[in-house]
Amino acid sequence: MTNDGTCAPDVYDALVAVVGEGHVITDPDVLASLATDHTGRWSGRASARVRPADAAEVSAILTVCRERGVKVTIQGGRTGLVAGTVPEHDDILLSTDRLVDIGEVDRDELRVTVGAGVTLARLHELATDAGLLFGVDIASRDSATVGGMVATNAGGLHTVRYGNMSAQVTGLEVVLPNGTIVRRHPQVRADNTGYDLLSLWSGSEGTLGVVTAVDLRLRPEPPRRVCALAGFGSLEDAIAAGRTVLASDGVDALELIDGRGLQLARDHLGAEVPTGHPWYVLVEFSGNHDRTDELAAALSQCAVRGEPAVGIDTAGRQRVWAAREVFADLVGLFGPPVKFDAALPPDTLADFTHEAVAVVNDLVPDAIPVLFGHLAEGNIHFNVLRCPDDAALYPAILDLVRKHRGNVSSEHGVGTLKRNYLDLSLTRADIAAMWTLKRAFDPENFLNPAVLFPDSYRLPDPGRLPDSGRLPDSGRS
Amino acid sequence: MTNDGTCAPDVYDALVAVVGEGHVITDPDVLASLATDHTGRWSGRASARVRPADAAEVSAILTVCRERGVKVTIQGGRTGLVAGTVPEHDDILLSTDRLVDIGEVDRDELRVTVGAGVTLARLHELATDAGLLFGVDIASRDSATVGGMVATNAGGLHTVRYGNMSAQVTGLEVVLPNGTIVRRHPQVRADNTGYDLLSLWSGSEGTLGVVTAVDLRLRPEPPRRVCALAGFGSLEDAIAAGRTVLASDGVDALELIDGRGLQLARDHLGAEVPTGHPWYVLVEFSGNHDRTDELAAALSQCAVRGEPAVGIDTAGRQRVWAAREVFADLVGLFGPPVKFDAALPPDTLADFTHEAVAVVNDLVPDAIPVLFGHLAEGNIHFNVLRCPDDAALYPAILDLVRKHRGNVSSEHGVGTLKRNYLDLSLTRADIAAMWTLKRAFDPENFLNPAVLFPDSYRLPDPGRLPDSGRLPDSGRS
Repeated sequence: MTNDGTCAPDVYDALVAVVGEGHVITDPDVLASLATDHTGRWSGRASARVRPADAAEVSAILTVCRERGVKVTIQGGRTGLVAGTVPEHDDILLSTDRLVDIGEVDRDELRVTVGAGVTLARLHELATDAGLLFGVDIASRDSATVGGMVATNAGGLHTVRYGNMSAQVTGLEVVLPNGTIVRRHPQVRADNTGYDLLSLWSGSEGTLGVVTAVDLRLRPEPPRRVCALAGFGSLEDAIAAGRTVLASDGVDALELIDGRGLQLARDHLGAEVPTGHPWYVLVEFSGNHDRTDELAAALSQCAVRGEPAVGIDTAGRQRVWAAREVFADLVGLFGPPVKFDAALPPDTLADFTHEAVAVVNDLVPDAIPVLFGHLAEGNIHFNVLRCPDDAALYPAILDLVRKHRGNVSSEHGVGTLKRNYLDLSLTRADIAAMWTLKRAFDPENFLNPAVLFPDSYRLPDPGRLPDSGRLPDSGRS
Repeated sequence: MTNDGTCAPDVYDALVAVVGEGHVITDPDVLASLATDHTGRWSGRASARVRPADAAEVSAILTVCRERGVKVTIQGGRTGLVAGTVPEHDDILLSTDRLVDIGEVDRDELRVTVGAGVTLARLHELATDAGLLFGVDIASRDSATVGGMVATNAGGLHTVRYGNMSAQVTGLEVVLPNGTIVRRHPQVRADNTGYDLLSLWSGSEGTLGVVTAVDLRLRPEPPRRVCALAGFGSLEDAIAAGRTVLASDGVDALELIDGRGLQLARDHLGAEVPTGHPWYVLVEFSGNHDRTDELAAALSQCAVRGEPAVGIDTAGRQRVWAAREVFADLVGLFGPPVKFDAALPPDTLADFTHEAVAVVNDLVPDAIPVLFGHLAEGNIHFNVLRCPDDAALYPAILDLVRKHRGNVSSEHGVGTLKRNYLDLSLTRADIAAMWTLKRAFDPENFLNPAVLFPDSYRLPDPGRLPDSGRLPDSGRS
């Protein structure tokens, strides 16, 4: 390929010298596509896409760009939900798609090392082949990459059992903005030596370095699973049921599902899912023994409406889970939805939800709010369908989150979408401490410069960084 | 109290202005005692002890000291095992002993906020009073403080079930070296907003700030517990048993115990503990149902020697646990022991242990090696009794740790004791990344300056910090 003119010649030549001509893409159509978020709602500009083969090439690319004042945006599977991979400064797009090495599964230590570009689906596959499982699962599994999931500290369907991505990471290979390659791959199960950089890098959204390889914890596949989908007459009853169920051992999933969503899925997608109740809760128990009785006992203490659908064998479980999986298609029914990802304290979760629905009905009467969420974490995914313009809705809903003591991001991250709402759940002193870290590792602010920090931290002069950003006054300190 | 001459008058006056005369102690005897590690093996020099009442006073103290070039060493319960609270530069000792506020236990969210100076025993007490438990327990519970346990990311007897201290922390109040008070107290159960500073601060050994208050996760007390102490003919059999047991649900503790230690405890302390086998494993299962059968089934797959001692009711469990608890007294039988705290990969754990015992027998023939450890984490506490001088032993044992791919600290931290061994399990690039953080938050290197980083990071001129330390060549990069 040749330089199609989007990229400064000296930068292009330097990148080609690192990765070879075939791995520096400057085709304007390709770049325009990659500079646009998968929802189509957010777009930016990129000057080249570069595809390093290993950490050493990543290091060289970062050095090329840093020395020439070129911004870099890292791209994995581009399935993120907060516009975290949209370049804003004619960035170089650093793709992880060639970082796909897969190590041997360590069946004794239940661990595997994979490149940042390996997809979640591939990871699940290799865990399954070894008779094991990987503890994080999300709907975008076919495209989402391990590196992106570490960068955003992805959560998902089984967080209640296994934790977020950060809890799976036992080691990392990271290229720092200054080009240093840090390899932390403890061979032991308990490491308490020095700063917990693994947790710091997990969820830092590519602002502190490029994750190039990850050591991941695998788990024994529990031999017995049972799940149930139970209907409830009110959100309050569903939330109370979640609390009751959590007192049991072996809860593997605890999902809140909006009955309105199931009705939509039946009407518009022909999905064979239960309908008729305003809310549903999907519960899965797993372990070494059959937990059907424990699941039944837990649900018997809840205000369940009607008879729960129970799944024990694979086919039965798939039927139950269909009511949750269908939301991946459902939320796109009228084009890209407006998505909110917030965790709320349990005592405000119901009020927040009712008020958020009322706000949608008021501001965008044609829109359809559809909810689901991870009940154990109080994490609500509030999707607004048929809502072409989110300009009015976004601040109104986030004001509600603030009012109800929720957070900006429960599992999607902050990205560019929520960067100006960071002070909703973090104090100014906290954000300033984060900025101290960012400045220490990336004083030029050239790596993933668009994400995480509020606009006030981005001065017009990119060479000069403020000591701390000036946040819009929010009544917090 | 008046200034007894140990402290520069301007510093003394400034500290008195912050906390009042009664809370600045300069009595030379008191300071000499506080500047000596509880083992008596390590001592330094301090110029005053100051006892702030809250985070604002901590902030003012740090500002006083930073502006005057005075080093500060933070002291909690001073029960640490790596000389992490020994001042090396006529430091001001910042005591957390007045930071003992205790919040209401949130029985819905299973959370409590406590001051950094609250002891672990007090925390257990208030959890028990609420019908709950706190997931970390260590032998020094009567003196160890929550702040110190966060700073060292303490582990202990139930890490296999609940994780280290870091896993209990849901929020922190931290005073940064520049005096900023950062309060991160998420009200939600799942927070993925910004850098994971909670994990960064946990285990940072007071080098990045002073923890003044902690939000801690509490747990439901499992209604049923059962434990057993099983004898084994070899360390290899005991390690294999640990692996077998871990495949069960509900493992609450999995402790390796040295039969030689039990024999010593019986002979010298008159302890009523089982003896006769070279190694023992203590297993505890807990949960909502009786797991006695599961425990028996797990042990039946192991090479157990003789009949295990089983504990079901409180008295029975105490009898079993006595074989583990007795080590707290036992290791001090001949004065302070030399202690090693390392995690090893499972495949080298036995070899390391055999070779370490041989090294002790060779170098200090009169010494007695006594081991115990947390088998799930591969964490060995290798104690050498009757060993007055560790000068020869220390490097020899740590060389073995290095050879067997172990780490410097599994749960005690690095402190001053192991600071020059940091490169044993971390690469130079990793340590340099840690130093980048330390420099960003504490450019004067005045807060807990003696711990964690190798001597090469401490230049003679305390006002000038190197970009990165020069580590002794260790064949690693």
